[in-house]
Amino acid sequence: MRVSGNNSGSEGLPCTREACLELDATDPLATYRDKFELPPGVIYLDGNSLGALTTSAAKRVEQMTTTQWGVDLIKSWNVHGWIDMPTRLGARIAPLVGAAAQEVMVCDSTSVNLFKLASAVARGRDGRRKILTERGNFPTDPYILQGLAALVPGLELQMLPREQIAAAIDRETFLVVLTHVHYQSAELFDMAMLTARAHAQGARILWDLSHSVGALPINLSAARVDFAIGCTYKYLNGGPGAPAFMYVRRDLQGDLQPVLSGWLGHAEPFDFVDHYTPAEGMTRHRCGTPPMLSHAALDGALSVFDDIDMKVVRDKSIALSELFIALIEGLGSDTALELASPRQPERRGSHVSFAHADGYALVQQLVGRGVIGDFRAPNLMRFGFAPLYLRYVDVWDAVRILREELDDWRRHGPAVVTRQAVT
Amino acid sequence: MRVSGNNSGSEGLPCTREACLELDATDPLATYRDKFELPPGVIYLDGNSLGALTTSAAKRVEQMTTTQWGVDLIKSWNVHGWIDMPTRLGARIAPLVGAAAQEVMVCDSTSVNLFKLASAVARGRDGRRKILTERGNFPTDPYILQGLAALVPGLELQMLPREQIAAAIDRETFLVVLTHVHYQSAELFDMAMLTARAHAQGARILWDLSHSVGALPINLSAARVDFAIGCTYKYLNGGPGAPAFMYVRRDLQGDLQPVLSGWLGHAEPFDFVDHYTPAEGMTRHRCGTPPMLSHAALDGALSVFDDIDMKVVRDKSIALSELFIALIEGLGSDTALELASPRQPERRGSHVSFAHADGYALVQQLVGRGVIGDFRAPNLMRFGFAPLYLRYVDVWDAVRILREELDDWRRHGPAVVTRQAVT
Repeated sequence: MRVSGNNSGSEGLPCTREACLELDATDPLATYRDKFELPPGVIYLDGNSLGALTTSAAKRVEQMTTTQWGVDLIKSWNVHGWIDMPTRLGARIAPLVGAAAQEVMVCDSTSVNLFKLASAVARGRDGRRKILTERGNFPTDPYILQGLAALVPGLELQMLPREQIAAAIDRETFLVVLTHVHYQSAELFDMAMLTARAHAQGARILWDLSHSVGALPINLSAARVDFAIGCTYKYLNGGPGAPAFMYVRRDLQGDLQPVLSGWLGHAEPFDFVDHYTPAEGMTRHRCGTPPMLSHAALDGALSVFDDIDMKVVRDKSIALSELFIALIEGLGSDTALELASPRQPERRGSHVSFAHADGYALVQQLVGRGVIGDFRAPNLMRFGFAPLYLRYVDVWDAVRILREELDDWRRHGPAVVTRQAVT
Repeated sequence: MRVSGNNSGSEGLPCTREACLELDATDPLATYRDKFELPPGVIYLDGNSLGALTTSAAKRVEQMTTTQWGVDLIKSWNVHGWIDMPTRLGARIAPLVGAAAQEVMVCDSTSVNLFKLASAVARGRDGRRKILTERGNFPTDPYILQGLAALVPGLELQMLPREQIAAAIDRETFLVVLTHVHYQSAELFDMAMLTARAHAQGARILWDLSHSVGALPINLSAARVDFAIGCTYKYLNGGPGAPAFMYVRRDLQGDLQPVLSGWLGHAEPFDFVDHYTPAEGMTRHRCGTPPMLSHAALDGALSVFDDIDMKVVRDKSIALSELFIALIEGLGSDTALELASPRQPERRGSHVSFAHADGYALVQQLVGRGVIGDFRAPNLMRFGFAPLYLRYVDVWDAVRILREELDDWRRHGPAVVTRQAVT
């Protein structure tokens, strides 16, 4: 099933469309595409930014809106189990990240969850002063840590290039915050090695799994990871701005005192007492009342992951992205496209970035043709490969259209486009 | 239109059902009920906890799910204006709280927004050490402030009974946090007086409007309020756990540096630079990616408030709750119900609480009869009067059913019920 680059020396596209159709015919994940509501005429290579709508998510949202909220109103918190949704959704995500059910909870946004965990760790730290993170990480992580450092006297944030991280973990470091798969390059950090390195220095480590969860196997328990956060609206297809998740290793849960201590994290929230006493386990990290309709979409979307083998997902993710790279390499060197992701698939997540001087305009031209990727400043064209709904033939067709747009760009220069925000 | 208690001396219920039907016939808000999807056979007196579903909210959620997310996918952030939803929704709430459009933003939960504002004020404070709040306030507010005080050395939280608050604002106080309408008693704080008192001592004040917004006129600008937060899932009907709002008076916005500095609060979030620079105005208080489906419900729900006169809403709120109290008082003293809200309507919000030794069981019995109120520990039966969808006849029918349940309780004692969480 694996498509390697070894036929990339032939003229034009290095494999035929028919070969891709054959790969699709034997794809063990082929039936998953039917679980999605994909618009016709679109090749969606942005599932790494906003996953596609599943039929189950649409149904679940409709159910919660009209028959739960609409009919049972306030009673729904009990009779439809709304109140426990954060822990139930966490338990469904747990197997996808190699965690126990009681180690994961869904709540708030990735940014807020990072603050919650980092501030709780900072509150309980023992004399150490330093948080270490990667320069060039997805910026909400450093921004949040900068805010925390500005609030707490004596706390210092060190930001270093990726290759200097391991050596910079020292006895002054109480927390290392790293993102498993880089949002631009898709480069994978070595989670086990860096976690061990942090522990060897007596530091804790927090992994941001936003760009890896749902796309590749993750084993937090095996790596003895301390803390993790992650996003559910990318490969988990939880919907726009879907609530994020957080993980705390079980043996660390009892000592971690929340700073964002909201009422639903109280041991007895419905006693309405004046003083905060943390609930057991992850529940203490709940804060305010959760946005249930967004939880509903995630609940529906996670149905797709029931009983899934993430190894099979990873195999297809690699096959799709290897095919994409091989096809683009087959276009020759005058495309001015430069691979900005690791060439070895085992060092990549599930997206691939190419640098191009006119990348923004080219991405917009592709979008106009129905091939949806995205652009990341200053010059990256980013393409995500969501194995559950993408076909090999989609990759082939996308590169064919890209080739046409590149031909057009070579003849006429870039289209004039106004830059817009795309998350 | 106002129903006073002056006919409460008559036997049985102090006014007739026909009189209530007449009040409904001339109610200037009568047509608003048609905008709601109310279940048959239910009298919903819990709109102060979870507002009812509007037709417009259901439609907006369906639209965002199937035709925006489902079809336009990632492009929706631009083409459907998702990216600006927090400021657009804030601008729609602004007139309901007497603020300018650019002073209000919708984001996160009330708890998180309190932390965001209190931590930002704490970050910029000038030597003062004290935050002052009410003992017995809805507990998420003190809990959040307790968490902040535990993180920041030298910061102190003082919690005092309501009547001691005004006198305790002193030159050590940098922030006063009060809730406009009390979640149990519905007692209204004098916003203008306490704000002036805080300012006289050089302190800032933050008002939690969770139990007042959408139920009574609020004028933050007239009172020169510094900061506010509020919930949108009560009288604004934004849906379960709908995103909350925050307000910062315009002249204070420039100096307030966020602590929860997430990527969408950056001046140029799509430049993806390593260092946080706050955006202008309220936008800097955005944090992570917002849960859009929950925003959609709020967007739809707010349509009901377009062009509404909050004075008319308040008049009906008072008339409904005065009718309710008068009808209950008319049941005589052997009901063992004791009014736990101020008797003067101008000192109350839009809900009414009665203490009763078997309050929890009685509330459950009422729920079983289709009269939905809620219970607040230790002994309060709480009834909310949402003027947009409640009729006078609903109040009359609710009290008739309550009378029957009280009769039953007098004869047989309380039903045996297991206590459950109800938010």
